[in-house]
Amino acid sequence: MVEVISSVERQSTQHDSALVARVLAQARADVLAELERVFAERRRTGYGPLYDLLADYPFREGKGLRPAICFAACRAAGGRTDQALISATALELFHNAFLVHDDVEDGSEFRRGKVTMLRAHGAPIAINVGDATNVLAVELLLGNTGAIGVRKALLVLNEVERMARESAEGQAIELGWIADRRFDLEDGDYIRMAYKKTCWYTVIAPLRIGVICGSKPGPLAPLDAELLPLVELGFLAGIAFQIHDDLLNLEADEDLYGKEIGGDLWEGKRTVMLLHFVRVAPARVRSRALRILTTPRSAKLEKDVDWLRAEMERAGSLDHGRSLAREYSERALEKDGELSFLEENDDRRFLREMLQYVIHRVK
Amino acid sequence: MVEVISSVERQSTQHDSALVARVLAQARADVLAELERVFAERRRTGYGPLYDLLADYPFREGKGLRPAICFAACRAAGGRTDQALISATALELFHNAFLVHDDVEDGSEFRRGKVTMLRAHGAPIAINVGDATNVLAVELLLGNTGAIGVRKALLVLNEVERMARESAEGQAIELGWIADRRFDLEDGDYIRMAYKKTCWYTVIAPLRIGVICGSKPGPLAPLDAELLPLVELGFLAGIAFQIHDDLLNLEADEDLYGKEIGGDLWEGKRTVMLLHFVRVAPARVRSRALRILTTPRSAKLEKDVDWLRAEMERAGSLDHGRSLAREYSERALEKDGELSFLEENDDRRFLREMLQYVIHRVK
Repeated sequence: MVEVISSVERQSTQHDSALVARVLAQARADVLAELERVFAERRRTGYGPLYDLLADYPFREGKGLRPAICFAACRAAGGRTDQALISATALELFHNAFLVHDDVEDGSEFRRGKVTMLRAHGAPIAINVGDATNVLAVELLLGNTGAIGVRKALLVLNEVERMARESAEGQAIELGWIADRRFDLEDGDYIRMAYKKTCWYTVIAPLRIGVICGSKPGPLAPLDAELLPLVELGFLAGIAFQIHDDLLNLEADEDLYGKEIGGDLWEGKRTVMLLHFVRVAPARVRSRALRILTTPRSAKLEKDVDWLRAEMERAGSLDHGRSLAREYSERALEKDGELSFLEENDDRRFLREMLQYVIHRVK
Repeated sequence: MVEVISSVERQSTQHDSALVARVLAQARADVLAELERVFAERRRTGYGPLYDLLADYPFREGKGLRPAICFAACRAAGGRTDQALISATALELFHNAFLVHDDVEDGSEFRRGKVTMLRAHGAPIAINVGDATNVLAVELLLGNTGAIGVRKALLVLNEVERMARESAEGQAIELGWIADRRFDLEDGDYIRMAYKKTCWYTVIAPLRIGVICGSKPGPLAPLDAELLPLVELGFLAGIAFQIHDDLLNLEADEDLYGKEIGGDLWEGKRTVMLLHFVRVAPARVRSRALRILTTPRSAKLEKDVDWLRAEMERAGSLDHGRSLAREYSERALEKDGELSFLEENDDRRFLREMLQYVIHRVK
């Protein structure tokens, strides 16, 4: 991947990639330890085989991005790791529930280097596992009252409700495009959809929940003032993240990535790259592309998908995606500079690094 | 349907069927008015087309059993209808979310007299609609703090979490039987599954949530003492309800029932009647039955399903189900007699009627 890395980005990438790796690894270790405890208890008191299935996705090799953002935001707001532990673990569970259902909805084959829950156990069991994972996450959050008090526990529940609502609406917009076979979409349409589907649950909610958990006790109004700019910051970073995620799907190293490369083309998924290509391609090329995209996955031919991928590269559609991701990442960095209420510590630096990491990661 | 109606049952059936109809209709009207308000607001502030889909199932002709039980329990505990309005509406939404996903998991064709969400819009959209319906229900419950205070709102959320967890575990048990092609099951296996899958969300949670909403403010301990016997009462009534529901699927009037008659046999669903039949049928009959049951729905023949239905009747399997449903209904009535903390008013009488209604309803 050819990238023009700005001097600011290069500097911090050189300085703090170890910090990013360390915070991600620690967050993942903390969450997995909590999940071990939770699943052990559920296996003891509930119907064990269900919880074996629930534990599948969370213990696969994942980035643990959301818990890490939540922990770091908590500590950057002056709090301790333990104050965000339940919330971060619940966020990871909600994320996994979303992935299990998303894989059924998209008919996906692989997730994090293994076959999806859908392929391994079929749609009925996968749907129920996703549902049960959501319930378990809510259960954890109801236990938050002991860790952070009733008021903050309710604030976190409200954030989670908003996050889940936005995700479902974003998913509905995307599924609507598929049902209506729509490809005549602008960058703005895509960005609105991804704001709802991805930004809330990947960045905005983890940031806001972390700040809620870590902030000093006080009246409600100042907290609102702190939480509001995180919506825009998370929106900008989340869009960069999602576009980069879609770019990885087109060109990543399959062993590192864990999903099939080009899977989005097989599934006909709308990405800014694909939508750009549909807009700029000459009429005959566009017609062939749309025929391929609307062919059911099982009837698609590998040579057609390869052709599509090559034409997109040639039309500058991947460059369009890269430049858009970079633009959003840079705007996120600018927005970050305006936040004055967070402490300038390693966690704050981690959050700033993440704003670039989202477009430099390889998986 | 041949029934031996005990004198107690006949007496109250004669006296209070109007009461049952009135409380059900009022509960349904209250919940639908609240849903109209909620959906109108969501359509205004969110992605409208999603909420059009969410409104589909709840506005179809349903019994509204769960909200009615919740309202009646609230008023029998000394509360007012408005104190249970949000909770009863949320229960109806959770129920509809469960039905939407259940229809996908079972591949069902009809629900409440129309095609299922699955058939009308496909699995991806149906899964997302179920998810979004759950989120909307949680959103309502987070607004409960204004209506019944923080402590009761949290208690209701805990009840809902337990209800959803039990449902998912019950669903997992049933889906496990299907995946393992198991039919060698006893009444006790079925009852344990239905306790989790049906009793909690149809009877136990509506009863307990109603009592929480309607009870006088006081320390936590007495409330616990009141809530505990409702688990057993709801278990007994729920089992009667579920067995009767499965009987209706085999022998109801299709126009009244709203689902296809015999659909459970087409889907190979384990019911106490079917499991009884598999236990008592002669070896050759059982072999043919198991072959039919394990044939995919699309490859089943109508004459085979008709044969199975007739053999089950002949083997006394429907009688077995009827007698079991009656037994549980009668035990529920006995248990009801032990409850001393509820007021003896129309709502208390409605709840007692329900314990018989569950085995006398025709849809």
